[in-house]
Amino acid sequence: MSDSVKYLLDEEHLPRHWYNINADLPEPLAPVLHPGSKQPITPDDLAPIFPRAVIEQEMSTEREIEIPGPVREVYRQWRPAPLFRARRLERALDTPARIYYKYEGVSPAGSHKPNTAIAQAFYNQQEGVKRITTETGAGQWGSSLALAGSLFGLEIVVFMVRVSFDHKPYRRAFMETFGAECIASPSPRTAAGRAILEAHPDSTGSLGIAISEAVELAVQRDDTRYALGSVLNHVLLHQTVTGLEALEQMAMADDYPDLVIGCTGGGSNFAGIAFPFLHRKLRDGLATQFIAVEPSACPTLTKGAFAYDYGDTAHLTPLVKMYTLGSGFVPPGFHAGGLRYHGMAPQVSHLAKLGLIAPRSYNQLECFAAGIQFAKAEGILPAPEANHAVRAAIDEAEKCRLAGESKTILFNLCGHGNFDMQAYIDYTEGKLRDLTYDESEVAMALAGLPSAG
Amino acid sequence: MSDSVKYLLDEEHLPRHWYNINADLPEPLAPVLHPGSKQPITPDDLAPIFPRAVIEQEMSTEREIEIPGPVREVYRQWRPAPLFRARRLERALDTPARIYYKYEGVSPAGSHKPNTAIAQAFYNQQEGVKRITTETGAGQWGSSLALAGSLFGLEIVVFMVRVSFDHKPYRRAFMETFGAECIASPSPRTAAGRAILEAHPDSTGSLGIAISEAVELAVQRDDTRYALGSVLNHVLLHQTVTGLEALEQMAMADDYPDLVIGCTGGGSNFAGIAFPFLHRKLRDGLATQFIAVEPSACPTLTKGAFAYDYGDTAHLTPLVKMYTLGSGFVPPGFHAGGLRYHGMAPQVSHLAKLGLIAPRSYNQLECFAAGIQFAKAEGILPAPEANHAVRAAIDEAEKCRLAGESKTILFNLCGHGNFDMQAYIDYTEGKLRDLTYDESEVAMALAGLPSAG
Repeated sequence: MSDSVKYLLDEEHLPRHWYNINADLPEPLAPVLHPGSKQPITPDDLAPIFPRAVIEQEMSTEREIEIPGPVREVYRQWRPAPLFRARRLERALDTPARIYYKYEGVSPAGSHKPNTAIAQAFYNQQEGVKRITTETGAGQWGSSLALAGSLFGLEIVVFMVRVSFDHKPYRRAFMETFGAECIASPSPRTAAGRAILEAHPDSTGSLGIAISEAVELAVQRDDTRYALGSVLNHVLLHQTVTGLEALEQMAMADDYPDLVIGCTGGGSNFAGIAFPFLHRKLRDGLATQFIAVEPSACPTLTKGAFAYDYGDTAHLTPLVKMYTLGSGFVPPGFHAGGLRYHGMAPQVSHLAKLGLIAPRSYNQLECFAAGIQFAKAEGILPAPEANHAVRAAIDEAEKCRLAGESKTILFNLCGHGNFDMQAYIDYTEGKLRDLTYDESEVAMALAGLPSAG
Repeated sequence: MSDSVKYLLDEEHLPRHWYNINADLPEPLAPVLHPGSKQPITPDDLAPIFPRAVIEQEMSTEREIEIPGPVREVYRQWRPAPLFRARRLERALDTPARIYYKYEGVSPAGSHKPNTAIAQAFYNQQEGVKRITTETGAGQWGSSLALAGSLFGLEIVVFMVRVSFDHKPYRRAFMETFGAECIASPSPRTAAGRAILEAHPDSTGSLGIAISEAVELAVQRDDTRYALGSVLNHVLLHQTVTGLEALEQMAMADDYPDLVIGCTGGGSNFAGIAFPFLHRKLRDGLATQFIAVEPSACPTLTKGAFAYDYGDTAHLTPLVKMYTLGSGFVPPGFHAGGLRYHGMAPQVSHLAKLGLIAPRSYNQLECFAAGIQFAKAEGILPAPEANHAVRAAIDEAEKCRLAGESKTILFNLCGHGNFDMQAYIDYTEGKLRDLTYDESEVAMALAGLPSAG
C-alpha cells in the first residue's frame, strides 16, 4: 500500500462552473438590508461598491455559474489543487479512519484566498475599474488581492489591521512587492479611521474597522471598487472550486467522506470545501456530516446570536442576517488572525441555523499541538487558521480509534504556515496561552444590534 | 492562446531513475583525495561519514540509478513538479523568446533541497543510522533535512551559520517544529567550533566552518552520519529528477530549450535542471547552451582557480578538484545565503573547465529587480538565490528582443521567497547595496591551497 497518496486531477477536470448553494437551500436566505432604509437592497445600492458581475452573483439563484476563461487560466497555475490521503498521520494516530485533506497552500499566496481574489480582480478589470480597496487581518487576503491586482493591472489599496501591520512586516512586504499600497488601520486616510483614532489613539484595529475604511475609500471615486475576502455569497461561490475538485478526487480514491471539516472565520474556506458535498447530501439524502471549526476566543457560530448585523464597525455596510458576536465586538489577539471576525457568512449561518452543519470551537494551544503533529507526519506546516480543521480531524480520527470505527474524514488544509513562524515560536517557547473573550463585551455588542426595520 | 501554461506530468511519469552524468563525461573526474594521505579515497574512508548506498552513488558510473520506492512515494507529495511557460513575463518583456521555468517551490520546504534530503534520509534509515548531522546557511537545506528526518524517524542536528541563525529565526523555528536540533555555528559543541570561537569570539560563521562542525560530530558516534545538501556527486544525482521531468515536459510543450539556466552556489539545482539536457547534448550533438549563474560577490566559477581544495574550513573533508575561491575565503554577507560557498561541485566545475557550461555572475541589486519583475508578471516571488537565474533568463530574453530572435529559454526556479521577505524589504527600502569580495583575501586563500600530494 502506498505511503502518501496524492489525487491530482488533469487540468481538463478543472471545474468550468462554480456551485451556487442558493439554488438548493431548503429555505431562502433572509434578504440583505440597506443600512439606511433597512429595506432589502437592490443591485443599484451595491453599484458604488462592487462591479455588476459580482452583484449579480451575490443575488443569483442559478446553481452553476461559469468560471470565466481568463480566471480559469490563472487558476491553472496551481489548480486543480492536490487532495492527499494522510496515511502517515493515520498510522501515527493508529486510527482505522481514512483521513483526506485538500491542500490549498499550493497557490502562490499560500492559501485558498486567490480563488476569489483572481475572480474579483477579473470582473473589476472587465468593467473598467482601475483601483480596488480592501482590508486584511493576518494578510492572506491582502496578499492574494495584491497578486491578483498585479496580474490584471489594477491598483490595490489594502487597509491592514494595525496589530498585524506591526507584527507581520513580511506579509506587508509581500503585498508591496506585488505593487499594492498597504496602510495600517485605523488610519488618518478616512473619516472612519480618524474617528477611531480620535477616541482611541492607540487602537490596534480590527477587521470591522478596516472594512469601514476600505468601503469609505471605494465609494469616493468612480474608478474604485471594494473587494471582500470572505463572508459574502459571491466569495463563497468562488471558493467552491475547492469542493468541486475534491468531489472528483474522492471519486478517484473510490471513497466518499462521512465527515467534511473546515475552519471558519468569515466562512469562505469552509464553504468552499463543504457546499459541493452539501449539495450531494441535499440532493441524494446522504448522511454526510459537516463540522465548522472556530476559535473558542471568537465563537461566532457556537456562542453568537443569529440576527441582522453590520459587517463593519462604522456601519457603512449593508445589514445581513448571520451569527454574530456584535459588530462592536473586538476579538482578543489570538494567532489565527484570519478567524478574528465578529460575524459569519450568511450562507454558513443559515445552514448552521437549519442544523445542516455542526459548529465546534477549539482553543489555540490544542490547535497548535495538532498542527505540529500533522506537520511531523505529513511534512506540511499548516497556517494557524488551518490548525483548527486539523484539530477536529485528529479528534474525529481518535474517536474512530476508540470506537473501532472506520470513517472517511475530509478536511480543507486552507493554507501553509510559512508566514506564521512567529506564532509557532511563541507556541514552542511556551509563550502562548489560551485566550477568552470578554462575555460582557459580547453581551453589550449584542444588545446594540440594530433592529431590522 | 492561453495565458499561463502549466505542463504537469502524470504521477506515472515521475522518473524511476536518477541520471548519473559520470557515465557520459568526455573525460573522467579527477579522483577525490584523502585529506591526510592525499591519495585517492576508498569507500571505507567515507564509511564513518556516509551510508554505503550513498558512497556507492558517489563513485558510480552507472548512467541510471534507481529511485527507491519509498523515496518516490514521498516525492509524489509534490512531484512531478510543474513546468510553466512564462507567457505573462514574455509579454511584459515584449520578447519573441519563449521562456519556461521549472518550479521547485512547490515542495513542502519550498525549494529543490528535499529531492536529496528525502533520498539521504531514506538510505541512512535503511542502514540503521539514528542521527544525521548537517550544516545550513540560509536554512533551505536544514529545513529540508529536518522534514526528511521527521518522515523517516531520524534525529537531525543542524549547524546553522551564526549570521543566519541570528537573522532567520523563522527558518530555525521551521526546523525545530519538525523536531530538529538547530545549533548556531561556530559552536562550543565541537573542537572545530571552539578553535574558531577562541580566535574570533564574534565570528558570524560560514558554511565551511559549519561543515567542519557537522562532520566532526558525525564521526564521533557509530549511529550518526553526516549529510551534505550540495556539491557532491550523489547530491547532484538526486537533483536530476528535476531535469528528467523537465525533459518530458518540454516534449509535452513540443519545444526544446536553446538555453538552460540555473543559479549556482554548490551547484546542485543547476545540475538538477541541466544534466539531463547535457546528456542529450553529448549524445545527440545538440547546440543547447548552459548558463551557470553565480553572485558577483562569490564568483567561484568566473574568478576562482580550478584546483584541489577542501570542502570545509577545518580541512576535515576529502580534497576535491573544483573551482574554488579557497577554503579560507569567507564570502561577504549578501542575501542569497544559499550561494555563499567558496567551492563548486566537482562535476559542475569539470564541465565548466571542459567548456560545456558557461558561467556568468550578477550583483544582488540587479537580481532583486529581476525577481520583482518576475513576481509581478508570474505571481510567484522567487528566493534571492533563484533571482540569479531569473536575471539571466530576462537578460537572454531581452537579447532576443533586440536581435528579433526567438529562442527557447528554460530556467530552474529553485525556490520561493516566502522566508526571505526581510531581504525584499531591505531591497525596496534601498538598504541593500552591491557587495564586492576582498580580492586580496581570495588571493591569500588561493595561495594557501593544498598541494595534491
